[in-house]
Amino acid sequence: MNVSIVGATGYGGVELIRFLNNHPHLKIKSLHTSSQSGRSLYEENAHLMHMNDKLEEIDPEAIAKKSDIVFLATPSGVSSQLISEFSDLNIKVIDLSGDLRLQTPGEYEHWYKKTAAPHHIIEKAVYGLAEWNAEEIRQSTIIANPGCYPTAALLGLAPLFTEGWATATDVIIDAKSGVSGAGKSLSSVTHYSEMNENFKIYKVNQHQHIPEIEQQLGRWSSDLQPITFNTHLVPMTRGIMATMYIKVNRQTSTAELRDLYETVYEGHPFVRVQPLDRFPSTKQVYGSNFCDIGVAYDERTGKVTIVSVIDNLVKGAAGQAIQNANILMGLEETAGLWSSPLYP
Amino acid sequence: MNVSIVGATGYGGVELIRFLNNHPHLKIKSLHTSSQSGRSLYEENAHLMHMNDKLEEIDPEAIAKKSDIVFLATPSGVSSQLISEFSDLNIKVIDLSGDLRLQTPGEYEHWYKKTAAPHHIIEKAVYGLAEWNAEEIRQSTIIANPGCYPTAALLGLAPLFTEGWATATDVIIDAKSGVSGAGKSLSSVTHYSEMNENFKIYKVNQHQHIPEIEQQLGRWSSDLQPITFNTHLVPMTRGIMATMYIKVNRQTSTAELRDLYETVYEGHPFVRVQPLDRFPSTKQVYGSNFCDIGVAYDERTGKVTIVSVIDNLVKGAAGQAIQNANILMGLEETAGLWSSPLYP
Amino acid sequence: MNVSIVGATGYGGVELIRFLNNHPHLKIKSLHTSSQSGRSLYEENAHLMHMNDKLEEIDPEAIAKKSDIVFLATPSGVSSQLISEFSDLNIKVIDLSGDLRLQTPGEYEHWYKKTAAPHHIIEKAVYGLAEWNAEEIRQSTIIANPGCYPTAALLGLAPLFTEGWATATDVIIDAKSGVSGAGKSLSSVTHYSEMNENFKIYKVNQHQHIPEIEQQLGRWSSDLQPITFNTHLVPMTRGIMATMYIKVNRQTSTAELRDLYETVYEGHPFVRVQPLDRFPSTKQVYGSNFCDIGVAYDERTGKVTIVSVIDNLVKGAAGQAIQNANILMGLEETAGLWSSPLYP
Amino acid sequence: MNVSIVGATGYGGVELIRFLNNHPHLKIKSLHTSSQSGRSLYEENAHLMHMNDKLEEIDPEAIAKKSDIVFLATPSGVSSQLISEFSDLNIKVIDLSGDLRLQTPGEYEHWYKKTAAPHHIIEKAVYGLAEWNAEEIRQSTIIANPGCYPTAALLGLAPLFTEGWATATDVIIDAKSGVSGAGKSLSSVTHYSEMNENFKIYKVNQHQHIPEIEQQLGRWSSDLQPITFNTHLVPMTRGIMATMYIKVNRQTSTAELRDLYETVYEGHPFVRVQPLDRFPSTKQVYGSNFCDIGVAYDERTGKVTIVSVIDNLVKGAAGQAIQNANILMGLEETAGLWSSPLYP
Repeated sequence: MNVSIVGATGYGGVELIRFLNNHPHLKIKSLHTSSQSGRSLYEENAHLMHMNDKLEEIDPEAIAKKSDIVFLATPSGVSSQLISEFSDLNIKVIDLSGDLRLQTPGEYEHWYKKTAAPHHIIEKAVYGLAEWNAEEIRQSTIIANPGCYPTAALLGLAPLFTEGWATATDVIIDAKSGVSGAGKSLSSVTHYSEMNENFKIYKVNQHQHIPEIEQQLGRWSSDLQPITFNTHLVPMTRGIMATMYIKVNRQTSTAELRDLYETVYEGHPFVRVQPLDRFPSTKQVYGSNFCDIGVAYDERTGKVTIVSVIDNLVKGAAGQAIQNANILMGLEETAGLWSSPLYP
Repeated sequence: MNVSIVGATGYGGVELIRFLNNHPHLKIKSLHTSSQSGRSLYEENAHLMHMNDKLEEIDPEAIAKKSDIVFLATPSGVSSQLISEFSDLNIKVIDLSGDLRLQTPGEYEHWYKKTAAPHHIIEKAVYGLAEWNAEEIRQSTIIANPGCYPTAALLGLAPLFTEGWATATDVIIDAKSGVSGAGKSLSSVTHYSEMNENFKIYKVNQHQHIPEIEQQLGRWSSDLQPITFNTHLVPMTRGIMATMYIKVNRQTSTAELRDLYETVYEGHPFVRVQPLDRFPSTKQVYGSNFCDIGVAYDERTGKVTIVSVIDNLVKGAAGQAIQNANILMGLEETAGLWSSPLYP
Repeated sequence: MNVSIVGATGYGGVELIRFLNNHPHLKIKSLHTSSQSGRSLYEENAHLMHMNDKLEEIDPEAIAKKSDIVFLATPSGVSSQLISEFSDLNIKVIDLSGDLRLQTPGEYEHWYKKTAAPHHIIEKAVYGLAEWNAEEIRQSTIIANPGCYPTAALLGLAPLFTEGWATATDVIIDAKSGVSGAGKSLSSVTHYSEMNENFKIYKVNQHQHIPEIEQQLGRWSSDLQPITFNTHLVPMTRGIMATMYIKVNRQTSTAELRDLYETVYEGHPFVRVQPLDRFPSTKQVYGSNFCDIGVAYDERTGKVTIVSVIDNLVKGAAGQAIQNANILMGLEETAGLWSSPLYP
Repeated sequence: MNVSIVGATGYGGVELIRFLNNHPHLKIKSLHTSSQSGRSLYEENAHLMHMNDKLEEIDPEAIAKKSDIVFLATPSGVSSQLISEFSDLNIKVIDLSGDLRLQTPGEYEHWYKKTAAPHHIIEKAVYGLAEWNAEEIRQSTIIANPGCYPTAALLGLAPLFTEGWATATDVIIDAKSGVSGAGKSLSSVTHYSEMNENFKIYKVNQHQHIPEIEQQLGRWSSDLQPITFNTHLVPMTRGIMATMYIKVNRQTSTAELRDLYETVYEGHPFVRVQPLDRFPSTKQVYGSNFCDIGVAYDERTGKVTIVSVIDNLVKGAAGQAIQNANILMGLEETAGLWSSPLYP
């Protein structure tokens, strides 16, 4: 099966290339960018010098003729425009931006301050949280690949919500991300001398992933309260940790809680529930598609602490996109993705 | 006035030396260590090669004869033993360890898993949260210098508790620290290749600073609930950020909240309340004694977010210790400490 | 074909595991350590939690029965002892330590300050510089896998020496390495707070890789002068850059020089000679088996500058070891190794 | 005495402010920028929030009326224009850019690709290598503050050249710098995700500091050969190490060599010659005006290795500028600069 990548030279794009180069069934057929067509891939990406690919312009019809799937690794605000051109063609679309995730256009416009994608397309898009929506994904042609923070948060919270332990409770998600999440665009925030040896909070109470998390939690729990969600930049390139605090509706223990998670995630090879009393650090999933989760029950406060880590560019972007492609095409979920984290 | 430092070669010790070298009134009279007496200071600390000081053994009587103040920059479990030897001598003691902070020996033993200091000494020790306890500090001879995390957290929470905005509410403190907080002792956690490009959570719900924070909050609020407090290691050397979530007992706005903080901290030069809608990052206090605080009121959730940053080795250790020494000796609070952060 | 790894939990060991897990022909049969046998692999290596392997004790006879190749990912001084036990058994050995690299035991003892391996074994060992010694490797049973610095330096210098451009000239190799090269053992040099935001030189003129580089250069050039070689630690985990300065015995230009390199390395997929006037940085080979080389001729001085980068744990250790295994077993040289660098 | 700073918000500017805030004799009278006049200093520099200064426009006449010295912390190409306006006024100028360092305008234009400053002004400018040119500095009104790399390199090489040990020999300077040397302007090279966990070489054989180093060495040695000089970026914010290789014209030993350095630098408090067989790392001068130097004689090659480290923003920029101001005004050389490095 053939795939094409639009936005091939961004961080999401090159990570798709890294995995797809070793995928047993999906072959990269073409790479596309808006501004660098005609150049060689490696001119912009010295690490890919062993590849000879040329960058091509974005021609949806031509792409649809040669590929079965197109990955849109384009920024928010761009995907929403491209999607219209692809949606009538015979090609499946996996969009890595935030443009197709929110079902309510008004919500999108409120949080993203941009024009939403056409409503009839948003309606067709399935939210690609692979471990939880595989059924829908399988029957879809447009996948809205989840955001990096929502992936970490939702996989960490899901067992409590789907199993009925969390109801009408508030959730606090204190999230931390490596800097690659901010992409390749230059800004003073991500200038090396400003970001190195620094720890920053940003978009306090205003991150556009808030409605995305709430939308999915709301599907699991009808009486969801507004969540508290904050994001920080860590002086490292990759990795997300979501540290989450929540009250559950029963007396429990750390061991019982851990059992719940282990049971729920049985059969999901990319979620690794940690041994009792151990908590993940971001580096243990570096470069891989794993989501590692540790849990604790604090008897002093009656609160549950959940620690969920992913690599923001893999499980939080390109890796989950390929996992969705695998599901979509009826392949094994782990095809091309079953590699160990890079350590140290 | 003369001062001596016990534990002069640890991270707290050399930071005391850095500031005291430029202090207008306090002069370093002698430096002491348990294991390296007789050696030159710079053999262990190449950065101090411009100093000729020798390290001496720890002889409390000799120290008390030549100095007015002794700083104990020793680890927990060591200070509790040294303190007895110093407490009958005519010298003021500022202890940077956790040994004298908890008023209840049982609490200390529960959280530190070590033998507590003698009760009659603990009773005499004043908790040196400089901005809040100056009166008591002035009249004391033994100062328990606050922990790094508690300093960041308490300065951030104080206005809400002292002004009656926070009562019988739960507090969530999600704290992040640079690695120097773990000190100079080698461990696999702080081995470079393990810690670099990594973000770790540790001591989940079990950090020994929990009772220290609760003890001080409890002085301000009689109906305090147990707090939630978690700590993370950031791949950087210095800096702490405490991100805090709390419900207040009134409707408010970010502007009103900020005004409260500005009013409360007027006249406290080391606390810099940030401009409206701006939040501090750790590097903006790097190497300085400042505590920078930003606040927000989230209308969606009704929760207050407080972001407080310090340099863990300065305001969180050596800097606040000197600030306490200044108060103790009737000097200007800022003497020797009024230097700008290192940036970038 | 089956392989076993001795020293499976060190940085070299886990990197072997990472690549072998995706190798089409070599399967990990057993993992061995001296001190942790009986434990699960993931207890020491949380990033490998998706594997169920147990660590076993080191029993050479048992290993030789089940595997075709054993990788010794053990420290110098340990391999020299184990090698005797393996050398009479029907198993091929690839040793990642420095113990079998120097053909003269006296040299080994001078530079390593340890007892050399038995001379008859050293004589059988082939120096596994894969791009240059493939013929000998193919016919051997014991491979001395090259050091990380020598790999970067020798691949960068080889064309000038083998093509007769460098004769009786002095060479200056100024090398820089990420900290993982120092391994997993704790030391104050690699303590995070000491190494972060720091750049260090070490073993000035005394690094044990000096004789290893000279030995190989000496095979190419009979009138080699003693080389100058210095090593530095960079505050990063992975990557080596060797910046080299050498006078060649002819007038040339940067373009001509580059052509030489391109010609010499044609057919060697892991060496990527850079485009004209471009020089590699370490991150462009991160996690991969590539060696990227850039060259320049300085008309002002008549000197050639060569810049060679590798990932010290891959091409400088585990990757080259697997490349040697591939050659040894008659497999394609790139089998299991043809993956793109991790970027960013 | 009053001073003004032009270019107050760049990295050189804020470092001048940091030191001048604690200077006993020099007082900051005004701060100037080309683009942000009217704004508060701290709006651009959150770390300076304790200061109330306003940024002013650049009006040379007004500046000359209120200040005795003006620091030009402006980029190359800007200083050369401003200098004409200041040179007729009654004010001393210390220029931190490269615009006044090269005595031959053609050289400047060749290496900087910009228009040189007026020749009559260049002729009046004294090269402010403080330890070596104090006499001339004292009698001058325009100081060309040395570049960061040249400062590290020249202080390391000076004893060999001024004492006649190095004649007609080639010198190889392999220099490494923290990223702050690249300034505050955004570029993909210094984008966090590109620079972190990376080590880069840049401007191979083409750095504009080459002629600056040669010019000063040429003053000491009439038969100087063209030097080899290369520069690398280290993933850290501050610090420069120059590792230098040179052949001397006599047999010597490391001890004898070290004695030479110690003798030459006696009475120069900012140069700290390291103990025998010890070599400096960059962090031991972090945030300070020290230059630490270690030397070795390699008996195998007959070459001398010199390792020189500075903080590029202090001794390599703002610190040396203030040192020059002190000399210029007849103050103690160390005034306002005698502070310990920040460690760790």
